[in-house]
Amino acid sequence: MPLTHSAPTGRDTSGPEQLRAMTEQVEDGLRTFLARERFRWAREDGRGAEPARAVSELVGAGGKRLRPRFFLSGYLAAGGSPSDAPVRAAMALELLHVSALIHDDVMDDADRRRTRPTVHARHADVHRSRRWFGESRRYGESMAILAGDLAWAYADHLMAGTSRAVAEEWFALKSELIAGQAMDVTAAVELTPDAGLARHIAVLKSGRYTVQRPLTLGAMMAGRTDLAPVFASYGEALGEAFQLRDDLIDAFGDAATSGKPVRQDFGRGKMTLLLALAMRSDARVRELVERGEVDLLHERLSGGTVHAEVEARITRLVERARAALTAADLPPEWRQELATAASLVAYREK
Amino acid sequence: MPLTHSAPTGRDTSGPEQLRAMTEQVEDGLRTFLARERFRWAREDGRGAEPARAVSELVGAGGKRLRPRFFLSGYLAAGGSPSDAPVRAAMALELLHVSALIHDDVMDDADRRRTRPTVHARHADVHRSRRWFGESRRYGESMAILAGDLAWAYADHLMAGTSRAVAEEWFALKSELIAGQAMDVTAAVELTPDAGLARHIAVLKSGRYTVQRPLTLGAMMAGRTDLAPVFASYGEALGEAFQLRDDLIDAFGDAATSGKPVRQDFGRGKMTLLLALAMRSDARVRELVERGEVDLLHERLSGGTVHAEVEARITRLVERARAALTAADLPPEWRQELATAASLVAYREK
Repeated sequence: MPLTHSAPTGRDTSGPEQLRAMTEQVEDGLRTFLARERFRWAREDGRGAEPARAVSELVGAGGKRLRPRFFLSGYLAAGGSPSDAPVRAAMALELLHVSALIHDDVMDDADRRRTRPTVHARHADVHRSRRWFGESRRYGESMAILAGDLAWAYADHLMAGTSRAVAEEWFALKSELIAGQAMDVTAAVELTPDAGLARHIAVLKSGRYTVQRPLTLGAMMAGRTDLAPVFASYGEALGEAFQLRDDLIDAFGDAATSGKPVRQDFGRGKMTLLLALAMRSDARVRELVERGEVDLLHERLSGGTVHAEVEARITRLVERARAALTAADLPPEWRQELATAASLVAYREK
Repeated sequence: MPLTHSAPTGRDTSGPEQLRAMTEQVEDGLRTFLARERFRWAREDGRGAEPARAVSELVGAGGKRLRPRFFLSGYLAAGGSPSDAPVRAAMALELLHVSALIHDDVMDDADRRRTRPTVHARHADVHRSRRWFGESRRYGESMAILAGDLAWAYADHLMAGTSRAVAEEWFALKSELIAGQAMDVTAAVELTPDAGLARHIAVLKSGRYTVQRPLTLGAMMAGRTDLAPVFASYGEALGEAFQLRDDLIDAFGDAATSGKPVRQDFGRGKMTLLLALAMRSDARVRELVERGEVDLLHERLSGGTVHAEVEARITRLVERARAALTAADLPPEWRQELATAASLVAYREK
């Protein structure tokens, strides 16, 4: 059964046009799939429909759709033809990401995401306002665990039926995401000023999960495994740039623009790449982290040279990502498209 | 690559013997798979290996393995031959269950499971004893969310590559599990004395998830879809018996025997089937639930006729489950095996 009613994209259109058409199909597909799921459960019992509603609302609230974009770019750059299977896989990547966001927001106790209350915050509020039995925090977090589990189940369902090689890559992506998050959460509470560890976490959580694995999955689904090393180099460099930008948005960005709370990371002693660099060059920073002096820390980081150093590093990483594409066996339009994507990711505002 | 080194089970052995042999292969498979996963992550970083360690430990701590057992029974009863795919699917069912247990224990704030500290309780203790930064509860729950996510990812990985029909059934099982839990968690905080709702939750969480779907998945993997209605009747009746026994163990059982805390459900106003029956026939019970009077409630339930009524209902449900098998197109040895399984489930002590 086709997921969308869009007209098929002809083989004669350019690559970037195909990317735009498939991106629209992904959006349509997500809307249709989630509306059907909400309806299915709401007919039975409103309580049981709540996780589907929460997932649907967060997907509908926007987001950058970076992983679907990289996946579809990898697929089309590798010569894949537009069809249902890659559209479903791109939907799966976004739903897995939504699952990770819902669960991560519990771990970070974040109150906003994509400009709305996070799933656990919203359900804790419902619990409080209806004066339900028990603890509002636990109820909110329980519903968020379930909504995240459901988005994860959706992702796997949409990815079912792929080849063994694609299934292995999909599993690698998911297990790295989890291991990277476990390292991140633990390093944050240990207050380990270990720049190497922070970089390793960024490689797992951003480089591989956001860029490299989606690109490689796409290329594999199109039948090309030879592009894996190119996408590994591109993804490793761009992933670090992605993470550094994330850290800068948290440290110096604006909550209204980013749609989520800022100044969360160093307030919790989260071992970001930014903080690892700063703690390495400045003993005072470490002291402020340990004392939880968020405002002083912010001042110290703004005033010093760290901010400018990190911007310079991002520039070098984008150049490195682009350089990885130069020698790749890719159509020129796709080298250009991926070079553009690198800038968008590295210089985004949210 | 075969999962185990056990000798292949010959086609001339009896069904129950094949069941025993495949059950051993599932245990070997789980051990081997989880040992490999722990090793893979431990080589990189101990922090990242923690979710795999937690999953492996909980699987190793035992459990009744009901879902693998029903799945393999469904597969063999439907004429399937012993092979790797059903062994992997049975492993997947156990790992999905472990995932659900880890996440449910967070939602219930349970401190013990399979005679050991729950994942979140253990990690909160580690956080406290090492005097790490931040809140011990949040750290413990974060690690449990991740361990549950990882067990879920393992389950899906082991289930990859099955037919579309099996994938649909697997998705149905997972989404019902989540919707059932959302209904359960919400009904508990609402304190709704709704016996119909409690029964519907028991159908989703126990009947379908524990009995019917595993049996049907097994039959489907063996290529027989005609058994679905038989397994639906058997599963619905036995699932309710399973849930009533669960409620009785919680209400009147012994923590040492069950390996998990008892008297949790009605202390939290959890709308169990047992409680729904009791609240319907006794206004005093409802009052005690609302006031959180666990000891008085226990006394009231022990003294009344509820306990005996529930035992009588379990007996009728087991008879109904067995009756569903009578007319089924199943080899006699499998009708017998499933009748035995019904008693084991309904009259278990933990």
